[in-house]
Amino acid sequence: MKTWTRKDLIGLDDLSTEEIQFLLDTATAFKGVGERSLKKVPALRGKTLVNFFVEPSTRTRTSFEIAAMRLSADVVNITATASSLQKGETLKDTALNLQALHADIIVLRHSSAGSPRFLADRLESSIINAGDGSHEHPTQGLLDIFTMRQKHGRIAGLNVLIVGDILFSRVARSNIHGLVKLGAKVTLVGPTTLVPAGFEKLGVRVAHRLDDVLEEADVINLLRIQHERQRKEYFPGLGEYVSLFGLTKARAARLKPGCLIMHPGPINRGVEIDSEVADGAGSVILEQVTNGIAVRMAVLYLCAGGAGLPT
Amino acid sequence: MKTWTRKDLIGLDDLSTEEIQFLLDTATAFKGVGERSLKKVPALRGKTLVNFFVEPSTRTRTSFEIAAMRLSADVVNITATASSLQKGETLKDTALNLQALHADIIVLRHSSAGSPRFLADRLESSIINAGDGSHEHPTQGLLDIFTMRQKHGRIAGLNVLIVGDILFSRVARSNIHGLVKLGAKVTLVGPTTLVPAGFEKLGVRVAHRLDDVLEEADVINLLRIQHERQRKEYFPGLGEYVSLFGLTKARAARLKPGCLIMHPGPINRGVEIDSEVADGAGSVILEQVTNGIAVRMAVLYLCAGGAGLPT
Amino acid sequence: MKTWTRKDLIGLDDLSTEEIQFLLDTATAFKGVGERSLKKVPALRGKTLVNFFVEPSTRTRTSFEIAAMRLSADVVNITATASSLQKGETLKDTALNLQALHADIIVLRHSSAGSPRFLADRLESSIINAGDGSHEHPTQGLLDIFTMRQKHGRIAGLNVLIVGDILFSRVARSNIHGLVKLGAKVTLVGPTTLVPAGFEKLGVRVAHRLDDVLEEADVINLLRIQHERQRKEYFPGLGEYVSLFGLTKARAARLKPGCLIMHPGPINRGVEIDSEVADGAGSVILEQVTNGIAVRMAVLYLCAGGAGLPT
Repeated sequence: MKTWTRKDLIGLDDLSTEEIQFLLDTATAFKGVGERSLKKVPALRGKTLVNFFVEPSTRTRTSFEIAAMRLSADVVNITATASSLQKGETLKDTALNLQALHADIIVLRHSSAGSPRFLADRLESSIINAGDGSHEHPTQGLLDIFTMRQKHGRIAGLNVLIVGDILFSRVARSNIHGLVKLGAKVTLVGPTTLVPAGFEKLGVRVAHRLDDVLEEADVINLLRIQHERQRKEYFPGLGEYVSLFGLTKARAARLKPGCLIMHPGPINRGVEIDSEVADGAGSVILEQVTNGIAVRMAVLYLCAGGAGLPT
Repeated sequence: MKTWTRKDLIGLDDLSTEEIQFLLDTATAFKGVGERSLKKVPALRGKTLVNFFVEPSTRTRTSFEIAAMRLSADVVNITATASSLQKGETLKDTALNLQALHADIIVLRHSSAGSPRFLADRLESSIINAGDGSHEHPTQGLLDIFTMRQKHGRIAGLNVLIVGDILFSRVARSNIHGLVKLGAKVTLVGPTTLVPAGFEKLGVRVAHRLDDVLEEADVINLLRIQHERQRKEYFPGLGEYVSLFGLTKARAARLKPGCLIMHPGPINRGVEIDSEVADGAGSVILEQVTNGIAVRMAVLYLCAGGAGLPT
Repeated sequence: MKTWTRKDLIGLDDLSTEEIQFLLDTATAFKGVGERSLKKVPALRGKTLVNFFVEPSTRTRTSFEIAAMRLSADVVNITATASSLQKGETLKDTALNLQALHADIIVLRHSSAGSPRFLADRLESSIINAGDGSHEHPTQGLLDIFTMRQKHGRIAGLNVLIVGDILFSRVARSNIHGLVKLGAKVTLVGPTTLVPAGFEKLGVRVAHRLDDVLEEADVINLLRIQHERQRKEYFPGLGEYVSLFGLTKARAARLKPGCLIMHPGPINRGVEIDSEVADGAGSVILEQVTNGIAVRMAVLYLCAGGAGLPT
């Protein structure tokens, strides 16, 4: 496959194996740009990107903003509290207005699953999903997979554990769809309330005890515990969570040499992961952040119709 | 007239017919820029524009921001809640500080009528009024008139209805001043509480029943119902408003062929305008938004001392 | 001294006399850029600056933002309420993430003294202190000293009064450290609660009556009264403060010809300074604001590794 034909990126579930690999290859080409002294290419000069965040996220917004600036695009930030959504305007009307303002790309973060697809079907602007409810967060999934591929040299055959709140996690869903397509063996790990029956049909294995599967992992991806988004009845107490699913020093010592420790951030030190382990040798948490720029540059570049990789 | 000599744009009431026409002609030249793939010209490179919004408005702020970026200006956004106005500083002191920071252009949105004039008289920076109380919103008026001229090929002789809350509307005032100067026949339509006696002296006609004047309109401009800014006693109930002044499907069917349906947005679907009518053939609501960029580029370019139209 | 070797600017207390002079000389070279029509140089093109303000400050944030744009850097703004600090992330983790996002420069405003040093010791990114608690605000100190040097042609031997809330003022501390190193005679003036014993060891004189020292001043720098940051027991009533320490018209009349009247802003008209005096001949308050851009351009340029002055 030599070309990319999509104007939008809604989820990894939509993409073919070849499309995911093409995105990762393009991100590899862009990764070099971030390592130069002059970290800027003219690829999207004169294009306008709107960061439209109806749910707050400084980290993802900043990553897209920097990626866009590296491509020489103009960036406008709109947040929900500041936006005219407050005046009762519908999401569709707001988006039609952004398109009328010549927004070439709209990066949307929204608490409702399906919002980006709804807009993508109605607008000519490229819609990039920056996280929609519990549905998908495709650029996070791509940057996780990019980091695994960079470190292990392949995805096919890797044993990847995804640990924590799978039920409500868009990061988990994007990882699952991408990893399964690329041939990884994915195991979801968490309490039955957060990893209920039914996930196996996505092509993954489910485990309810981290200690049972820890030692076979090539990658362990620890999801953030997000109290704000969960109903209490789904979730054990924090102490119980740490004892059953936290990556403590003792558990980290049992990991295979070369096992990657990943986390989408921000980390809760002492909860999902021991503080020293987070800063230790196997952790690639900050490399994930850096790779996020390259992945987002690739996504913006391809969806906005860029042709030809940077040289 | 070949040149523009004003450093500020405070209201259309201040401008001569020739100045308004020159602004519209300049906007026409800039409209082409927004249709290019590379939507950027170097006209204001190295100039700094400050969007100083003491009253929130994502739409107008974003439109000015994109217009400025298209002209290659640097843009800084300052909102009231973030600004040092909170510390008790006066508007004048804040503005003097912005000027001392080399702000070539200050785009001001403020709830007090007269604020932009106050600053324009005291500062060397260009002051662009982005809406001051119930006084004027000149770039909205210009983009409305620009859209009418583009679609009808002329303004002189057009029958333009402006419907709704005229009393408190800066959009209405800017439309009235501009349209009357360019020779349109303007009719204000609304309940007596919102279109009280006295408006006729601006050179317009007043009607209190939309159904009486609907069929002669070449343009119907529906103002937004803004509960937040009105005292209840001025305003009938929503149902009564719709039945008397809403552009329902039945009323839309009675419009002349080619009559433009306009609204400054954001629309309240089912209140000022039926939802299907808003999306229908006669509606130019989204074209108004697009034209707003071209009009604001022209205003910024001329007030900041640009010379020579883009080619 | 021909070169600058620091990656960070934490406080003037850290700098040698030669380093301060080199910064001021560099700022002089940049001051000319702000007076051009095209106020932009490519010095930091492709570099990313993050304005990370955990404590709000529109003025300082805007000044850094404009300085960075003048140097052609890309600017990302992050404020505390929007940041993931809300999710319980530590300052260090947030900063490590900013570094991982390729932030070449992080401008930090934080309520805790020592925060910028903490980050500077742990990150490769340049850390610029934009005010940390009551510790230092080095760019404000530099712009004050730059303005004095510009107007008086020298710093050595100048009699400089700093008046007001010395105890809690980071502006005062940065001024003191810089001025003493450059040979000025500094007198701190305020009530004993706000200028307690112990300041003399910084190489300054302390006075508790403004009227005793007013007539010998070459510069009088009036600190802002910040009720929000003070405990009431330290502070006399406003009326008493004005009568003892306010620069009233009567006191201004007793100043030496050529004495500079300075204030870091925003001024409380009628409190620290009479309104007419603030706008009068001796006041350089707005020139301080303008000089802030040049000083911040110099700081960003040198800390980010720029070589060669602009020509």
